Amino acid sequence: MNSVPPRPAPVGRGKKVSVAVHAATLAELVERGYAALTVDGVAQRAGVHKTTVYRRWKDKESLVVDALSDQSAMDVPIPDTGSVETDLRELARSLVRMMTGPTGGALLAAMFSGGADVPGIAQARRQIFDDRFRRAEPVVVRAVERGQLPADTDPPQLLKALAAPVYFRLLVTGEPIDEGTADHAAEITLAAARAGVLGEGRS
Amino acid sequence: MNSVPPRPAPVGRGKKVSVAVHAATLAELVERGYAALTVDGVAQRAGVHKTTVYRRWKDKESLVVDALSDQSAMDVPIPDTGSVETDLRELARSLVRMMTGPTGGALLAAMFSGGADVPGIAQARRQIFDDRFRRAEPVVVRAVERGQLPADTDPPQLLKALAAPVYFRLLVTGEPIDEGTADHAAEITLAAARAGVLGEGRS
Repeated sequence: MNSVPPRPAPVGRGKKVSVAVHAATLAELVERGYAALTVDGVAQRAGVHKTTVYRRWKDKESLVVDALSDQSAMDVPIPDTGSVETDLRELARSLVRMMTGPTGGALLAAMFSGGADVPGIAQARRQIFDDRFRRAEPVVVRAVERGQLPADTDPPQLLKALAAPVYFRLLVTGEPIDEGTADHAAEITLAAARAGVLGEGRS
Repeated sequence: MNSVPPRPAPVGRGKKVSVAVHAATLAELVERGYAALTVDGVAQRAGVHKTTVYRRWKDKESLVVDALSDQSAMDVPIPDTGSVETDLRELARSLVRMMTGPTGGALLAAMFSGGADVPGIAQARRQIFDDRFRRAEPVVVRAVERGQLPADTDPPQLLKALAAPVYFRLLVTGEPIDEGTADHAAEITLAAARAGVLGEGRS
């Protein structure tokens, strides 16, 4: 008997729905902001029934977190070049590219266009960043293993130090961000890590 | 003839009006956000006529910038302890205290509660930060003169590196900020400055 490959339909269809719903969520975030976004609006835009959305995501908050986490993961690949300088620079450059592109627009809309005052969004924001920091940790772990960073370097501390200057320009001073911003953030972070001030137990 | 001191009334009265109007502006910012704040509302709250406000501030934007700059200047005194470590720590601790107090609340309301979308607020935000960085520059200049930092250390670069981790927690991860946050920001900044990556011409 010729083996028939298992029908890929459920997985393929599921993946397609996810992609469409995520894209619709980001587009609605940019257009309406977090507060005005509705599951109905997302379903309509994605061309699916709203019960299809509710079957996978229990509420608007989890939908937004999932869409933003998923898209961030695609937009910010984790580098592994063998050099901590290059890895940190690449990571920071990806962050800059993401934040100046459509995902960044959606993220800022979710976080700052009324979203900050909405219950759940602070939690959602934290989850998105926890997720991103967790994904990037191997960059730090590998650098420590190669002896390029002090043994007690704390991955989340280092990754926050790397992201902070980028967000500071973006959110606080309003200065433009570019590759130079990314490279400078990498230099500051590397200097701090080498000086041993990004160790565990620092706040 | 006994010299009569010049009547302090005009200056005193002017100062009183400034203080009252600034306080009212910050209170309105916290309560309503930037978008909904009006010069009328500020005047009413300060107990002065709105023409009194318009005589000194040409519009809402300049009123908000002035109130926030003035209050930041009072809340964040410029330290001069003779040690760059202590000065940076003090500066960062004052920033943390300000941002967790009423001025910080007003600043965040101005910057992020609808303010970001309002024409003029980006410019206002930049002015407030330019003003704060300019005031704090002597801390860096003195440290360079004492030979505690590399000669080409750029004051704005250093001050941005110092503030970035504080705002990152406050605005992005939503983690609490405290003295530990301030001291850690000072350590990171000092390490970067000593490594020579906060020199002029960096972006």
